[in-house]
Amino acid sequence: MRAIEKREVPVGSVRRWLEPGPVVLVSSHWRGRSNVMTLGWHTVMEFTPSLVGCVIAASNYSFELVRRSGQCVINLPTVELLDVVVRVGNTSGAEIDKFSTFGLTAEPALAVEAPAIAECHAHFECRLFDDALVERYNFFIFEVVRARVAATPEHPRTVHYLGEGRFMVAGEILDRRALFRPEML
Amino acid sequence: MRAIEKREVPVGSVRRWLEPGPVVLVSSHWRGRSNVMTLGWHTVMEFTPSLVGCVIAASNYSFELVRRSGQCVINLPTVELLDVVVRVGNTSGAEIDKFSTFGLTAEPALAVEAPAIAECHAHFECRLFDDALVERYNFFIFEVVRARVAATPEHPRTVHYLGEGRFMVAGEILDRRALFRPEML
Repeated sequence: MRAIEKREVPVGSVRRWLEPGPVVLVSSHWRGRSNVMTLGWHTVMEFTPSLVGCVIAASNYSFELVRRSGQCVINLPTVELLDVVVRVGNTSGAEIDKFSTFGLTAEPALAVEAPAIAECHAHFECRLFDDALVERYNFFIFEVVRARVAATPEHPRTVHYLGEGRFMVAGEILDRRALFRPEML
Repeated sequence: MRAIEKREVPVGSVRRWLEPGPVVLVSSHWRGRSNVMTLGWHTVMEFTPSLVGCVIAASNYSFELVRRSGQCVINLPTVELLDVVVRVGNTSGAEIDKFSTFGLTAEPALAVEAPAIAECHAHFECRLFDDALVERYNFFIFEVVRARVAATPEHPRTVHYLGEGRFMVAGEILDRRALFRPEML
């Protein structure tokens, strides 16, 4: 695994990477403690402000770090990181330091205290925007405040969870721009 | 396009098809009017009850049908339906009957009045569970009350929207069950 160079992109463009539904690694930091969790329950909610909703179960060690700090980084791993993604999802930050255990590099984010994960394809730095559904559904609405993405590959081989330990890897790209009304693009 | 035979599956299993993040076709019905829309902003939220959150922009003709009826069907199309998926997303039910225009077959659902789309791989029949965030974010939380899925293929070639008229098609399947703790499967 290696650290990947990124360039900054507009926060309104994050649907490009999150709407296809990949598994992400959410990193967080609060009072000297950092953690990372694997997360598959998220959705884009708005372009401007750039909103993303995520379910972070209260049983996760990350839940309190995210809730108390009001921040996180949504990192986008690719298939090369799949075994790490699974191991991160099957261990708890209450017991181990997942960064050192799994060889992930925590690097400073631009606008939040939560670290970015250097080995991922993209980082979306988030601030808690609305916690109205946190108590009832563990559902956090974040605003993406900075976004950085690797220049290549254009189409990262993201992983998508099917349950029962199985993952789908992002496949072929099809272009249907010709069928769109211009204002829908 | 042809109608596809389905079998009923437990509603708690819908993450298998929705968590990977596919584009879905949401069908609705209210007071004699039916419609279908293309939707990419959704997330699984809970296993029991089986909850799915969806953003349905208020500008869509379907918004009022879903809000007033409190029901919809989330249908899962595969790549064979991609051109129809795009055309459904680029037209309005206020102007055309999308079922007849695009050759989609509306078939009765089991538990809701909204029709299922026979040509899709799966149908998830939904009732509105919580409208707390509908005003603020157009975010509907649905409970899946019945679920029907085609027996084959085991891994449908779903489509995942990247924005700008491009789609990713579901690719290779990787099994990492061996790395999971049993209680995580």
